[in-house]
Amino acid sequence: MSILISSLNWRYATKKYNTQKKIADEQLHVLLEAIQLAPTSYGLQAFQAIVITDPELREQLKPKAWNQPQITDASHLILLCAMRSIPEQFVDQYVTNMTETRGLETGALNGFGGFIKQKIKEQSSEQILQWNKKQTYIALGFLLAACADLHIDSTPMEGFESEAFDEILGLEPLNLTSSVLCAVGYRSEEDTNQHLAKVRRSKEGLILWK
Amino acid sequence: MSILISSLNWRYATKKYNTQKKIADEQLHVLLEAIQLAPTSYGLQAFQAIVITDPELREQLKPKAWNQPQITDASHLILLCAMRSIPEQFVDQYVTNMTETRGLETGALNGFGGFIKQKIKEQSSEQILQWNKKQTYIALGFLLAACADLHIDSTPMEGFESEAFDEILGLEPLNLTSSVLCAVGYRSEEDTNQHLAKVRRSKEGLILWK
Repeated sequence: MSILISSLNWRYATKKYNTQKKIADEQLHVLLEAIQLAPTSYGLQAFQAIVITDPELREQLKPKAWNQPQITDASHLILLCAMRSIPEQFVDQYVTNMTETRGLETGALNGFGGFIKQKIKEQSSEQILQWNKKQTYIALGFLLAACADLHIDSTPMEGFESEAFDEILGLEPLNLTSSVLCAVGYRSEEDTNQHLAKVRRSKEGLILWK
Repeated sequence: MSILISSLNWRYATKKYNTQKKIADEQLHVLLEAIQLAPTSYGLQAFQAIVITDPELREQLKPKAWNQPQITDASHLILLCAMRSIPEQFVDQYVTNMTETRGLETGALNGFGGFIKQKIKEQSSEQILQWNKKQTYIALGFLLAACADLHIDSTPMEGFESEAFDEILGLEPLNLTSSVLCAVGYRSEEDTNQHLAKVRRSKEGLILWK
């Protein structure tokens, strides 16, 4: 079995965290690098990750996430936020970044930038928002895989009030909205969920061949 | 640097594949296992992966994906499809699977099943569809990470006509719709994109701390 598959089998949605054990800075940065490396449509990365450590803020968020204990007990909370819109200026910054990173001549990617802007214009605000939200789920996949690889526990969470999170964290003025949350840290020995067999659809049911 | 991060750095959206080099069965099954292990909301896995190998079918799909050469040239195409709705029977099957996998008494999870059904009823058809589509992006993340880990090349693709794919593959009668596509295989030496520097937003820009 590949080591990654064995790590993906090891992971589970942790319900109870060890409140004393924190993720070391170096490992946290590996997790953030995985988020950074996640591919996105056109490479735009129209999202933001917020690492939430402030205990008071986490207490404030908890009732807006059905009082799930992971909110306050995990080592870190990572909130993936989608951009509410994609301003033309954001596309320009992306194109400039690509031009500089690849040592191209100024203006060499103007056509590419114009193409992306046109594709954005063709979609409604709601479509753009859904599109951006979907990209955050690729980043979530990379984050969860990186956690598993380092044997760091994780809990992907959709069960929170997005509008309340946006309000508490002041996200709307930043052109952001909370998309999906992930608690990361180390399981408590008392979390009985770690002993439960993993439930998945059979390969025969999940995979079709054409 | 962690080996996974170095693999995620190695990967890129491959434009030109080696048409002669196929993924070995054993490795393909590792990729499918990564998809199978991807977590989803409530663990429902309301999606399906379709592995497309038939050359004629791939020729037929190509013009519906802007004639991108990866459609016919990559070793395999993996199409992640979202369920259009979540029938109560599907929830029942899930609960039965969990009951059996964990050796619980029949009916022990009836409350859990009822809770999921209620949560589904509270959402519009469009919300359910978007929700299911987002889950396929976690699976995409796991698939891409597993590819990178095995140094198998990959190209995540949203640039295809979803309705045309659904029609050609007969997905609507299966209660499925195409969500996101991934070509997998081995890069051609001629693919100049492999030599381009990876473009990503800086950690300072992408990550906020609270």
